[in-house]
Amino acid sequence: MTSSPTLSPTPSNTASPILSLDRHRERLDAAVAASAARTYYSAFEESPSPRVYGESAAAEGKAAFEALLHQPFPLETPGSEGTVATERSPYGIDLGVTYPRAKDVDTLMAAAQAGMKAWRDAGPDGRTAVCLEVLDRLHGRIFELANAVQHTSGQAFVMAFQAGGAHALDRALEAIAYAHTEMTRTPATARWEKPGKHPLAMEKTFTVVPRGVALVIGCNTFPTWNSWPGLFASLVTGNPVVVKPHPGAVLPLAITVQVCQEVLAEAGFDRNLVTLAAEEPDDRLAATLATRPEVRLIDFTGGNAFGDWLEANARQAVVFTEKAGVNTVVINSTSDFRAMCQNLAFSFALYTGQMCTAPQNVYVPAAGIATDDGVKTPAEVGAGIGAALDKLLGDDARAVELLGGVVNAGVLERLDAAASRGEVLVPSRTVAHPSYADATVRTPMIVGLTAADSEVYEAECFGPVAYLIETAGTDQSIDLFRDTVQRHGAMTASVYSMSDEVVEKMRDAALDAGVALSENLLGGVFVNQSAAFSDFHGTGANPAANASYTDGAYVASRFRVVQSRRHV
Amino acid sequence: MTSSPTLSPTPSNTASPILSLDRHRERLDAAVAASAARTYYSAFEESPSPRVYGESAAAEGKAAFEALLHQPFPLETPGSEGTVATERSPYGIDLGVTYPRAKDVDTLMAAAQAGMKAWRDAGPDGRTAVCLEVLDRLHGRIFELANAVQHTSGQAFVMAFQAGGAHALDRALEAIAYAHTEMTRTPATARWEKPGKHPLAMEKTFTVVPRGVALVIGCNTFPTWNSWPGLFASLVTGNPVVVKPHPGAVLPLAITVQVCQEVLAEAGFDRNLVTLAAEEPDDRLAATLATRPEVRLIDFTGGNAFGDWLEANARQAVVFTEKAGVNTVVINSTSDFRAMCQNLAFSFALYTGQMCTAPQNVYVPAAGIATDDGVKTPAEVGAGIGAALDKLLGDDARAVELLGGVVNAGVLERLDAAASRGEVLVPSRTVAHPSYADATVRTPMIVGLTAADSEVYEAECFGPVAYLIETAGTDQSIDLFRDTVQRHGAMTASVYSMSDEVVEKMRDAALDAGVALSENLLGGVFVNQSAAFSDFHGTGANPAANASYTDGAYVASRFRVVQSRRHV
Repeated sequence: MTSSPTLSPTPSNTASPILSLDRHRERLDAAVAASAARTYYSAFEESPSPRVYGESAAAEGKAAFEALLHQPFPLETPGSEGTVATERSPYGIDLGVTYPRAKDVDTLMAAAQAGMKAWRDAGPDGRTAVCLEVLDRLHGRIFELANAVQHTSGQAFVMAFQAGGAHALDRALEAIAYAHTEMTRTPATARWEKPGKHPLAMEKTFTVVPRGVALVIGCNTFPTWNSWPGLFASLVTGNPVVVKPHPGAVLPLAITVQVCQEVLAEAGFDRNLVTLAAEEPDDRLAATLATRPEVRLIDFTGGNAFGDWLEANARQAVVFTEKAGVNTVVINSTSDFRAMCQNLAFSFALYTGQMCTAPQNVYVPAAGIATDDGVKTPAEVGAGIGAALDKLLGDDARAVELLGGVVNAGVLERLDAAASRGEVLVPSRTVAHPSYADATVRTPMIVGLTAADSEVYEAECFGPVAYLIETAGTDQSIDLFRDTVQRHGAMTASVYSMSDEVVEKMRDAALDAGVALSENLLGGVFVNQSAAFSDFHGTGANPAANASYTDGAYVASRFRVVQSRRHV
Repeated sequence: MTSSPTLSPTPSNTASPILSLDRHRERLDAAVAASAARTYYSAFEESPSPRVYGESAAAEGKAAFEALLHQPFPLETPGSEGTVATERSPYGIDLGVTYPRAKDVDTLMAAAQAGMKAWRDAGPDGRTAVCLEVLDRLHGRIFELANAVQHTSGQAFVMAFQAGGAHALDRALEAIAYAHTEMTRTPATARWEKPGKHPLAMEKTFTVVPRGVALVIGCNTFPTWNSWPGLFASLVTGNPVVVKPHPGAVLPLAITVQVCQEVLAEAGFDRNLVTLAAEEPDDRLAATLATRPEVRLIDFTGGNAFGDWLEANARQAVVFTEKAGVNTVVINSTSDFRAMCQNLAFSFALYTGQMCTAPQNVYVPAAGIATDDGVKTPAEVGAGIGAALDKLLGDDARAVELLGGVVNAGVLERLDAAASRGEVLVPSRTVAHPSYADATVRTPMIVGLTAADSEVYEAECFGPVAYLIETAGTDQSIDLFRDTVQRHGAMTASVYSMSDEVVEKMRDAALDAGVALSENLLGGVFVNQSAAFSDFHGTGANPAANASYTDGAYVASRFRVVQSRRHV
C-alpha cells in the first residue's frame, strides 16, 4: 500500500513511464466516479496502524523526520539569498531546518516559467500521470509528513497523519480528478461537417494551455490539507507553482516541493515547475508575489484580512480564498441530549478549536430546549457540554491526543481575552503533556452571551472559544444565523431539532446564507469534518471563502482551451 | 418550426407546463452532445427563406418591427424616471422607440432580487425549461429581431437574421447546455456510507444557489449574439439579470427582456428577474451598476478601455469580458492565390470589418510569397485582395448586402485617419445604398506598412481598415504575431502556408499567444466566423477577452453548491 514503484531516471529524449496514466487509471476513475456521485471513497488508508502500513513504517517515518531537523533542507530556490529557519514546534521543539530565503522575484518567476511550454505540451494525461505519481510518493512518506505536520501545526499525531496525510492526499486526488475531467471534456481533435448545398468539413484541434504562474499561500494549521488542492489543481492544468508556506509551517510543504521536483525531473521536466518560496515573517513575500504580472492564479488559506486584500488587489490573477467566519450551531431540541453534548464537545475540543470549520456560536432559546431528558435551560446546555468535555478531556494523556498543542501566541491571547466578554460557563484548563513538557495545551472555554452581545459573537475568535448565546426563541436563532453568516461568513453550520419544520427553516436559511449544514449530528460524524469526494469544503457563497474543495469552478478557470482548424 | 406552443397563463400555485424540461429535452441533449464532441450542430435554421420559415414570416416580422417604431416600448423598469430614445438606424431612420430610463438603482436592485428565491427553488431543470422556452419564443420573433438588429447595428438583413437571430440563439442554447451540464454534475441527493468497525451512513442534499444579481452590458454591433450567452448563462444558474444595452442598440435587447418577462410570468415567477436598464449615453449607468454590492456577475462586450476598467474595479463581481485585439493573418505561401484573396476580401468586407473577429494585420514577407500563380510581392498581394474586393463589392446593390452600414461616426473617423498612416494600397469607396439613401456604406481600405510601423499596427483600428505589413520573412511575421497578441490581444488568427513546418510554428505561436488559429481558409469558412457548439469564441488567454463562448469556466462560477447532511 505504501510503497511506490521505484523508477530509474529516464533519459529526457525517451518518454518516461511516469507519463503513462495507465498505472494510475483505476484510482483516477474511482475518484472521478465518487466525485460525480458524492459517495464514499478514499484512496489512502487513514489508519496509521502497523497492520495497515507495516511494523516499521512509523519508526522509519519518525527517523526520517528527525534526520531533517537542524539541517539545511535539500532544496534550491532560484533567486534565493541566504536561508531562514522560522519553525518552532507547538510541542516545544525548535525544528532548526533551514530553507533558501526567496529574494530575487524576477529570477524566481523566470525559473518558474522556463519549463512551462514542455509541461503544457505533456498534455492532460501526461500531467495527470505525473501528479498522481507525486501523490504516490508523498503517500510513501506519509509518516514523515505526519511528524512534520504535527510539529508545525500542533495537531496530535493521529490527526496529523489523517488530516495532514491521508485526507490531504484524498483532497489532492479530488482536485486532480476534477481537473482531469474538466480538461478532457473537450476532445483533442474533432471533425466538423456542415451539411447543405455547399457542404463544409473541417478538422479542429483543441489544446489545453496554462494561465501562467500559480501561487499557493499556505497556512500554519493545515499546511498540506489546505495547500495541496490548489497546488495540484494548478500544476495538473499546466501552470508552474510557487509555494509560499507560512513561516511557522514550512517543512510539510518543503517535503511536498521536494517530491514534486523529484518526479518532474525523473519524467524529464524542469524541476522549477514547483518551487518553495520561504521567507522571514516580516518579508511580506506573499503580497509581493501575489501582485506580479506573471502570477495568474492564487490559492490562499488564512485570515480574512489578507484574504480580502488579495481578492481586492491581485487583480491580474484568479484568486481562490479559504478564510474564516462565524460557524454556528442552532439548538432547538434533541432526541439525545447526552449524545448532542458529546458531539459538540468533540467538535470544540478537536485540535483545540483551531479549525476554520470548528463551531463558535451556539444559539439556544432562553426558555430552554426539549430533550429526551426533559427541558434544558441554556445554563444546563452549557453544563451538559461542560460535563462532556470533562469526560472527553479529563485524562491529560488522552486529552492531548485530541487537543494537540496551541499553534501560536495569538490563540492564547484570544482565549484569555474571551473570559471577560461574558459569563464563563466552562473554563479553559491547562493540560500537562506527558511527553512534551514545553507543549502549550488548553481545553475549550464556553462563554455565555445574550443575543444583544452581537459585537462579541459576530467576530471570529479563532481557537478554543465557543459562545453559548441565549435567544428569544429558535426563530430569532435562525434569523441571527442567516444574518451573521451573510455578513461575516461561515465554513460550517449545524442544527439540532426534532421538528421537521425547524430543520426545513434552517435548511432554507443555510441556502440563503450559502453555508453547508449538518443536521442532528449525534454519532461519529462531526460538523468540523468534511469527507473528500462527497462533502464540499466551503461554498464560495458567503464571505468566509470564495471557493470550494472541489467543484467545477475550482478547476475550470485554471486553464484555457486554444483551438486551430483547417479544411479537410 | 417558428411557432412556439401557446401556453395559457398558469395559476401560480400550480406547476406550470413551462417548468417541464420534457418538451425541450431532445434539443438540450443534442446541444450537450455537440458541445462535448465539438461536431456540427444547429438548433435554429439560419436561412430566412420562405421555404423554411413560411411565405408570410418575413413580412410579418417586418411589420411587427415597424409597429414598434415611434412608440413607447411596452416594458416597465423598476426605479425608472422618464424615458430615453437613443437609437438611429445606420440606414438613416430614427427609430423613435422610447424606453424607461433607469434611475433609482436601489429600487432596481431590490426588484431584481425579489424573485430570486423562488427562481433558485425552481431548480436546474425548471430554470433550464424556462430558458429554453424563452429561446423558442425568441425564435418565433426572429424576423422582427432581425429587423431590430439590422437597424441598430447596421448589419445587412441576412447577416442580422443569421448572426443576430439563428446563430445568437445557438450561442444562447450552447451557454444553457453548458450551464445545465455543470449544475447537474453534482447529484441533488447522495448516500454516503463509510465502512469500518463503526460504519457511518449519511444522506446528503446538494442545492445549486445563485451568486446574486447579474449585469449584462450589451454592445452596438452584436446586441444579441454577444449578450445572450451571458444573459442565459446567468439566468439559468439562478441569478436575476439586469440588461444594460448600448444606447445605440436597445431594441433587440428590449424584445429579449420582454420575452423573458412574458415566459417568467406565465411560469409563475417574478417578471423582474430580467429587467432592462436603458440610459442616455452620458448616464454612465454601466459603471454605477457594475460596482453595486448586489451585482456579483458581469458580462461585458465592448471596447478595451471600459472592459479593463471593469476587470480592475468591479471587485465584488466575477467579470467576463469580450473586448478587442489585433487580429492577424500570417501569409507565407498558398496553393490558390485567387481563393486566398477572395477569402480575405470577404473577411475584410463582411459587415464593413466591424467585427471583433475581423482580421486587421496581414504580414507578408518583403521578398514575396510562393503561390500557384508564381511569386507574389506584397504589392501584388495587396492588388490581388483589391481585385477580389472589386469583384465582391463592384455592384452597389450586392455590396450593401455584405457590407451593411457604418455603425457610428467613430468608425468613419478611424477610416479617414488610416489613409495617412501608410501607403493606401486599396482605397475605400463610398457605396450608394439602393433602398436607404441616408445609409453610410464604405468598402474596406488596405494600407501598406512595414515592420517598423509598430506604433500603427499594434493598436486596434476597429472598422474597415486592414494593414498589409512587409516583414523580413515568415519567421519575423510569426514573432511579430506572437508578441503583438501577447501584449495587445486578439480574437482570431490565420495562416496561409503550404509548408507543414511553417504551419506547425504558427500553431505553436498561437498556443503561446492564446489565440484561435484558422489555417489556409480558401473556401466557404471565414476567419471571423465561429460556429456554436464547435468553435470557441475568444480564449480568455490573451488581453482581448478574459472568457470564452462557451467553456466550463464560462458557467461554473455563476452558481454555488450548498449542501446539507444528516445521518440515516
